[in-house]
Amino acid sequence: MPHVQNGWYLAAWSKEISSTLMQRWIADQPICLYRLADGIPVALEDRCPHRKYPLSLGRLDGDIIECSYHGYRIDGGGTCVGVAEQTDTPKAQVRAFPLVERHGVVWIWPGDPDRADEGLLPDTWWLTDPGWTHFHGLVPLRARHRLLVENLLDLSHETFLHPSSIGNAAVAATPMTTAVQDQKVFFSRRMVGIEAPPFYAESCGMASPVDRWQDGEFHAPGIFILHIRIAPTGTSEPDGFHMKIMYGMTPATAATTHDFYAVARDYRAADTALTEFQHSQQLAVMKEDVDALETQELMYATDNVPRPESSIGSDLAALRARRVLDQMIDREAQATPAAGRASRASVAAGTH
Amino acid sequence: MPHVQNGWYLAAWSKEISSTLMQRWIADQPICLYRLADGIPVALEDRCPHRKYPLSLGRLDGDIIECSYHGYRIDGGGTCVGVAEQTDTPKAQVRAFPLVERHGVVWIWPGDPDRADEGLLPDTWWLTDPGWTHFHGLVPLRARHRLLVENLLDLSHETFLHPSSIGNAAVAATPMTTAVQDQKVFFSRRMVGIEAPPFYAESCGMASPVDRWQDGEFHAPGIFILHIRIAPTGTSEPDGFHMKIMYGMTPATAATTHDFYAVARDYRAADTALTEFQHSQQLAVMKEDVDALETQELMYATDNVPRPESSIGSDLAALRARRVLDQMIDREAQATPAAGRASRASVAAGTH
Amino acid sequence: MPHVQNGWYLAAWSKEISSTLMQRWIADQPICLYRLADGIPVALEDRCPHRKYPLSLGRLDGDIIECSYHGYRIDGGGTCVGVAEQTDTPKAQVRAFPLVERHGVVWIWPGDPDRADEGLLPDTWWLTDPGWTHFHGLVPLRARHRLLVENLLDLSHETFLHPSSIGNAAVAATPMTTAVQDQKVFFSRRMVGIEAPPFYAESCGMASPVDRWQDGEFHAPGIFILHIRIAPTGTSEPDGFHMKIMYGMTPATAATTHDFYAVARDYRAADTALTEFQHSQQLAVMKEDVDALETQELMYATDNVPRPESSIGSDLAALRARRVLDQMIDREAQATPAAGRASRASVAAGTH
Repeated sequence: MPHVQNGWYLAAWSKEISSTLMQRWIADQPICLYRLADGIPVALEDRCPHRKYPLSLGRLDGDIIECSYHGYRIDGGGTCVGVAEQTDTPKAQVRAFPLVERHGVVWIWPGDPDRADEGLLPDTWWLTDPGWTHFHGLVPLRARHRLLVENLLDLSHETFLHPSSIGNAAVAATPMTTAVQDQKVFFSRRMVGIEAPPFYAESCGMASPVDRWQDGEFHAPGIFILHIRIAPTGTSEPDGFHMKIMYGMTPATAATTHDFYAVARDYRAADTALTEFQHSQQLAVMKEDVDALETQELMYATDNVPRPESSIGSDLAALRARRVLDQMIDREAQATPAAGRASRASVAAGTH
Repeated sequence: MPHVQNGWYLAAWSKEISSTLMQRWIADQPICLYRLADGIPVALEDRCPHRKYPLSLGRLDGDIIECSYHGYRIDGGGTCVGVAEQTDTPKAQVRAFPLVERHGVVWIWPGDPDRADEGLLPDTWWLTDPGWTHFHGLVPLRARHRLLVENLLDLSHETFLHPSSIGNAAVAATPMTTAVQDQKVFFSRRMVGIEAPPFYAESCGMASPVDRWQDGEFHAPGIFILHIRIAPTGTSEPDGFHMKIMYGMTPATAATTHDFYAVARDYRAADTALTEFQHSQQLAVMKEDVDALETQELMYATDNVPRPESSIGSDLAALRARRVLDQMIDREAQATPAAGRASRASVAAGTH
Repeated sequence: MPHVQNGWYLAAWSKEISSTLMQRWIADQPICLYRLADGIPVALEDRCPHRKYPLSLGRLDGDIIECSYHGYRIDGGGTCVGVAEQTDTPKAQVRAFPLVERHGVVWIWPGDPDRADEGLLPDTWWLTDPGWTHFHGLVPLRARHRLLVENLLDLSHETFLHPSSIGNAAVAATPMTTAVQDQKVFFSRRMVGIEAPPFYAESCGMASPVDRWQDGEFHAPGIFILHIRIAPTGTSEPDGFHMKIMYGMTPATAATTHDFYAVARDYRAADTALTEFQHSQQLAVMKEDVDALETQELMYATDNVPRPESSIGSDLAALRARRVLDQMIDREAQATPAAGRASRASVAAGTH
């Protein structure tokens, strides 16, 4: 199954990108990431236009990458500006990908640069808001992108896969509402008068019963944000604890995915012990997910005679996300040659 | 090459199956094996009908498996009987495979359940007969099923591959008789007045010369039984030693096979030192076979321009086995859609 | 991409081949190499005509290989001369490949034996000339053959990949002349008045400036020879140092290659410390190449939408080599069935 190309994916955390060239696979392509001298991040196709050697293994001379195999020199726009020790300057170009840097996140648009629309990016203001604190990271996942999307869009799995931390029976037992708007899928689940799951009980020091809200938003193809509120049952929302968990679900190859996470809260910002506790819990939860998703990947990859999957009410948001992604992929496949996959190759070989 | 589906394979030794869920790949499918409370063994397709997560990773609640990803509950017949914490009960079904348990062996029929015929199973009475003792086990083999079948149907290889234990020149030098009956292939080799091979000399304490009988029966697709008799030359058979070696040759995936073995004898049943000696010898012989078959697998897998194989008289039983298997596979491929591979998928998605 | 079959490749150094059977993959085929009692080296297809078991795992009985699985006996011409312990002698044949042994090198022709032409082999007299000394070896490379050919045909990469040993700016900065003759590609680069690269400065003890010649000859498909001369600038050639580096570039499988090397010099032949220094430097340089080529292999193997490569003047010899190889492959593909790939299989099954 191809990946959506025309959409934003999390390329890297801002602090990952520097004047040291780095390679990261994104949407089936090797990408070279670095910063220009003025701090602007750059993403280039990581194959030298000469003999495909990774530019990321090259040497940075100011803003110019000099390939370490034969000396091709490529600027931050992907244009060959000469070859070291050679007098001729070949007309050559690698693809340069649109990047947007906001609130400590660098977003990439792997598809047609002309269609890159910053308006599609969600506002993640809490990642830099002084009233909030957060931690973040990246976990490698050897499973297809779609399985991670569906994992996060159906949080009923918390009940079964994460019973020792963030899940209890209330999650699966509480129905969601869902909505679709353009390429976004929303769901909302409000659990009332429930026992606090272990993670929140310890994390918030709040006596049960509590009310727990999960408001999820999926920005297809690669961004998921979960707004969490926990409050003692019967109190009004402002007295509760707020958390926002963002996942950057970035396909690397057909069956590997970058699982970026950022967990933010608006309380006890200076409590580093709490941050450490939450971080270790987050990684424990993600390990449970990674183990399950990698097993699930094997079950899908080896299923030679697949039959229709059974679905229930709690799958609705995930099914809507699946449909949005399918439609985006279909549109990209059906696009005229001038805008589609074939053309991207010819554009890349040209002068864009 | 596809595997025969409509036939009995050794799924597990009885003692392997318990109330602990286990996964075993059989004939290209992951199978979940466990016992119901009443002791009956069950084999289900090991993909949850919801999102293919292995049922074998689930939790057993009485006879019901509860999937550990999203809570689907599946009974011993493969029918979904509800979802934990959910009110709706989806109509969903995984395949349940016919099992037969006899003499400490659990046999599985991966194909069309309506065609499962217990009459095709050989009588392995000696595995529980009080006059006999045996040991058994399972060796993993990274080679295609067919190569193991042909290994056992042409025992002339004992002379060359196992000269330090069960083989000597007499095996290859002595012609076989062979016969085919339905899906069974028989061969018989009687060596008269030969020197006892090391394994039998030590195992029986019998002075050479001896007579040695090898009577093999292959029950296609997956069962091989070798009846062995050794007696001092010139004596009548009742004075000899009898052994029966059974192999369950169960394809796991296209190029991996479960190599089950059970070695039985009717003499010195209480002699545990002899059992240990024979068991270590058996494993040594199987290691020689596994090494050879895994090498042979590589030679077949990489042979892009294969030519016809050369064969001689000692190949006759193996060639007959090959033909029986080919005919079974052809019949399955040619079966009408209602009974063939396509139908199995639709049946599986239905209500069988 | 298929490999050229009708051409000479370096099969082994003479000293590698003995009465101990060995397997080496060459041009997508497993080959069994050994010496007959009279010292003549033999190369046979390393699959027994019976059940494809490697002959190289067999037992050598005089000049006859006896297969260790079922006892087929194959002579040095690849003909089955009987089966151990059996009375019948099947008509069976494995392919026997033309070998030529010269100056400590054994060359193999994997294609049509009738077309094997010793006249195509370069004269590597210096490998046994008393005025010369050399060391040699073999480095495994997990990259396609073509990438190694192009690496050696464009030595401008020395400037960027090997700056601490054999490369400096002068190599890339100095234009080559090139020529093509039949299946040979030549290039010549003369650097005048340059600083000696570290390897040569230490190796020759020569004060800069120096003149440096690189005269390369590629004998498609698999042999590269580099004639090197270094002399103080302004002196005549006889006062210089001479080195000859030969590479046997032998495809093993589609994406693995044997990288044979022999480095010879005509000065300080008895200086073993110098030999050791040069050998360690050679291996260090080859490690840099292997690392680069294996990375490049990954970039080519994963490039699903490849675009035309950019090339410059320093690529000319490599492009000419590429074209020669492409033409050879095209000719082999277009050959009539009687001489082409299909026929090789039938010939092999016959009596050639």
